[in-house]
Amino acid sequence: MNLPSAILEQAVDQLSSLPGVGKRSALRYALHLMGCKENEVADFCSALMRLKTDLHHCKICNCVSDTELCPVCSSPKRQQNIICVVENVQEVMAIENTQQYRGLYHVLGGVISPIDGVGIRDLNIESLLRRIQESYPAPVDEVILALPTTMEGDTTNFYLNKQLQPLGVKVTTIARGIAVGDNLEYADEITLGRALQHRIPFELN
Amino acid sequence: MNLPSAILEQAVDQLSSLPGVGKRSALRYALHLMGCKENEVADFCSALMRLKTDLHHCKICNCVSDTELCPVCSSPKRQQNIICVVENVQEVMAIENTQQYRGLYHVLGGVISPIDGVGIRDLNIESLLRRIQESYPAPVDEVILALPTTMEGDTTNFYLNKQLQPLGVKVTTIARGIAVGDNLEYADEITLGRALQHRIPFELN
Repeated sequence: MNLPSAILEQAVDQLSSLPGVGKRSALRYALHLMGCKENEVADFCSALMRLKTDLHHCKICNCVSDTELCPVCSSPKRQQNIICVVENVQEVMAIENTQQYRGLYHVLGGVISPIDGVGIRDLNIESLLRRIQESYPAPVDEVILALPTTMEGDTTNFYLNKQLQPLGVKVTTIARGIAVGDNLEYADEITLGRALQHRIPFELN
Repeated sequence: MNLPSAILEQAVDQLSSLPGVGKRSALRYALHLMGCKENEVADFCSALMRLKTDLHHCKICNCVSDTELCPVCSSPKRQQNIICVVENVQEVMAIENTQQYRGLYHVLGGVISPIDGVGIRDLNIESLLRRIQESYPAPVDEVILALPTTMEGDTTNFYLNKQLQPLGVKVTTIARGIAVGDNLEYADEITLGRALQHRIPFELN
């Protein structure tokens, strides 16, 4: 694509650095912003800049937050003795949307992935172990591992389990199985195999 | 979607104002920017701000440009007596990419669309007529209308033709027909009808 302006080209280059955005979409975004008023674009940019300047990570769970402690960690209504370990902020939001979980979180910031150069030291594992060792903010009875069902997620699960077992906490993982509404014939054999293996007593709900 | 931070929420709101971007994609973009370094986000924002502060519209054709005159209008190699009228900057780029056109452009900035509240006065029609009347920058022999094949495009074509005819210029439109590589059976009847009506002498190329 041959752009008639270097300024437009720079904006397109920057916009196409966003995940999943190609040059064509980036151009569409740039032309849209060009058509906006100057103060609108300034508002747009300041909202993005504030992501870096004003946004905190919660001191306890590392989730994004406007304050030192995130709403979950600072709520007295949450169960303090259960920690759910997730990869990213998105998973916190997904689990919160289920309205089924009342415990605390711990955001790792990724999973162990040697190919992407993500090692143990790049993740918030140390702070998780410290939370449990120091019973901060409260003694922990159970750690739920809610990491992705990928090889990297499984590796991280395995490593975390090895670190957590000596600390005397119960370690669980979320159930793997057939998704609600899914058809058995389209499930892959590993998922179906695990779903059979971890079958549960029938209950009406 | 329940975001854990008002700052993140504002960024997501702003990003989802981009055309075709939903809340979920906007969140993905925001989290990506959050993971970038502060100076990278600053570069990102300054590139966008420059779209409003530093980008010019060409004084002659109204195309975007870094300078007062765009590269096309300031090039002595272009044919000065043909103007191609297009809706937006994207069409200029599309036509330039064909490398088939050596004349000048005129960017209307839209098409007549009463539903969207776009009237004659909102478009760069006046400046087009002035260019031809005042032979600026050179006398014009032909105006090619390359507007979209929508009702709004046709309305604009009709209006422009009415204004241009009295000025003694030749008015043409780009050919409508079957796209190269397309199958006749899937063409809509209006396109196929027009393609038959405007058939051309057979040539090998």
